[in-house]
Amino acid sequence: MATSRFFNMPPFASTWNKSKVSLQRVNITSNAIQKTVRFSVINCSLKINHTQPALNDEIRVPSVIKEMENEEITSPSVAGRLVKGGPVFQQNVSVRSFEIDSEYKMSTKAIMNYLQEASLNYAKKLGLTIDTRFGITPGMRKMDLVWVFRGMHIEVDRYPCWGEVVQILHWTCASGRTGVRFDWTINDINTGETLVRASCLAVMMNKNTRKTCKLPEEVKDEIKAYLREDVEPIVEAFKYSCPQTEAMDHIKTGLTPGWNDLDVNYHVNNAKYLDWILESTPDSIRDRHELWKMNFEYRKECLKDDVIQSLSRVVPSNEKNREIEVEHVLRLESGHQVLRARTVWRTYSHSCRGINSMKIIF
Amino acid sequence: MATSRFFNMPPFASTWNKSKVSLQRVNITSNAIQKTVRFSVINCSLKINHTQPALNDEIRVPSVIKEMENEEITSPSVAGRLVKGGPVFQQNVSVRSFEIDSEYKMSTKAIMNYLQEASLNYAKKLGLTIDTRFGITPGMRKMDLVWVFRGMHIEVDRYPCWGEVVQILHWTCASGRTGVRFDWTINDINTGETLVRASCLAVMMNKNTRKTCKLPEEVKDEIKAYLREDVEPIVEAFKYSCPQTEAMDHIKTGLTPGWNDLDVNYHVNNAKYLDWILESTPDSIRDRHELWKMNFEYRKECLKDDVIQSLSRVVPSNEKNREIEVEHVLRLESGHQVLRARTVWRTYSHSCRGINSMKIIF
Repeated sequence: MATSRFFNMPPFASTWNKSKVSLQRVNITSNAIQKTVRFSVINCSLKINHTQPALNDEIRVPSVIKEMENEEITSPSVAGRLVKGGPVFQQNVSVRSFEIDSEYKMSTKAIMNYLQEASLNYAKKLGLTIDTRFGITPGMRKMDLVWVFRGMHIEVDRYPCWGEVVQILHWTCASGRTGVRFDWTINDINTGETLVRASCLAVMMNKNTRKTCKLPEEVKDEIKAYLREDVEPIVEAFKYSCPQTEAMDHIKTGLTPGWNDLDVNYHVNNAKYLDWILESTPDSIRDRHELWKMNFEYRKECLKDDVIQSLSRVVPSNEKNREIEVEHVLRLESGHQVLRARTVWRTYSHSCRGINSMKIIF
Repeated sequence: MATSRFFNMPPFASTWNKSKVSLQRVNITSNAIQKTVRFSVINCSLKINHTQPALNDEIRVPSVIKEMENEEITSPSVAGRLVKGGPVFQQNVSVRSFEIDSEYKMSTKAIMNYLQEASLNYAKKLGLTIDTRFGITPGMRKMDLVWVFRGMHIEVDRYPCWGEVVQILHWTCASGRTGVRFDWTINDINTGETLVRASCLAVMMNKNTRKTCKLPEEVKDEIKAYLREDVEPIVEAFKYSCPQTEAMDHIKTGLTPGWNDLDVNYHVNNAKYLDWILESTPDSIRDRHELWKMNFEYRKECLKDDVIQSLSRVVPSNEKNREIEVEHVLRLESGHQVLRARTVWRTYSHSCRGINSMKIIF
């Protein structure tokens, strides 16, 4: 079974219930990595968000998911592999004991870290980057350009458990004239079920002026083998209005990057922002809910000596709604915004914690 | 080549110079996982610490290191494998992009995380634990016992680079009547060279009274297949006097666990303490040196709402000495000590950073 949405998804507003879907019809299309599939509901018990395929919707899913099911897991030394000659990258990873939360489930931060890892390994695997490092092509180097993330959208249907091996699929797509979109799914290695969908817009920034620019033709030529065309995002940003900073009533100040939060460029890694968002999220939400959907809008990079304020506000909703929306802003003490974000939380859908409560070696 | 010290190491005080060692003589001993080897110096260029084998010293090294060199890397789903029927556990891991520091080298924190991961996977692999989780045997469960780390000693000869696959070897040993010692080496997958040595004393603690106790016979029976006898630590704690808190002149206050720092028991993970130690280590040391040796003495667990003070003091030394020693204390605001530590720093021995300076996707 595969539930990844690739594209051709009709507008669809309501939620739908399912816990299992099966493939009814599978037609190989002209696109080597896709199949047209029709979904039918087998078991209606779990509320799924609106970006999931609807009953009888025709969608395209990576055909490789099924093929990978019983395949031997990629050796970590290989750092993933190209699927069908290159349009999709695959990397299987095992969830580590230090990447889980108190319910033995992979943390959202760990998920974000692995998305970046897959992206860097894909560019490395295709031989696009200098010194096989951090996504810089020769053309980018010449023009002093670096990649920066602009917007990241993640939806988690089920968090993998400690020790579980999951399959990350990753592909990229030209996005207008300005950037590149990165898409990922994280899939259950046994069932092919998609657990996580993520989509991110990355743009070029001049590392000296710190200004973003259009994707230069020279760089586009370098990476065109890596860019797919006409593929819609695996997950869309959900719509929301601009956060009202003055109404934000949960505030944590004085947050600073730790020494271990800095990356090779002495910047704060994109996943660290999630830590800071959580710092001002009310305990009542963090303790009894799990992150379901996230929209991050990166507005400014964060450096070693920056001091961050984290502001959050629970968005009022009607009582019937079991999901909780929270809006967040991270800003410098000067007032400059570093990140705007919107998160959607749901009551725990499952726990990886065993029947017996365990203690950890601390 | 293999440079791991197992035991039978004569007292040895001075440092010695080498960059490469070769095996001159290899005799299989009665111990299935060891060989007696004699080292000779080929090339004298790199200063190595005193726990390395000296010229013509006879030492024992895990024979599996050589055997593993060309072996296919273990699939992550297997979470490691038992070597020679069980006395040593082996897990190969790939260094991820989010586990490196600004020099593209694996962070010390990531190393500590993988030591714990190997230990938990070893217990899991041997089928000793309930629900294959976090090192709890049925006997421990009955007596409400958990493992706690008391002292951790780590020496790093070379930090692995991003993408490098390293081999972790791990074994355990009874330590007196009270505890169990965990030992690890992290080895270069191509040369067998030992990059990291670590040794840790773990004891039993009653999770209700929070008091430590002797290793009960019932638990000892459960884990005896897992315990080796008469094997000296792969690395010894280096000697130092009790830290003088009142003389500590580098202080950072108000450190709190982040939501993502809490483990399955809502405790702070042992590797997090390193973050806090670094917070009060002078920039001049962190910027121009790398961690070489570390002794951690865990004194108290740290919970979600604790507020930590980090105190450090550079230990005076004579000018000739290129290594820098720093003593550290982490304590609660109440004054209770959470951790005592001593770190030794050396000037950067190498960098994984390429000739071309790279930018990270942030």
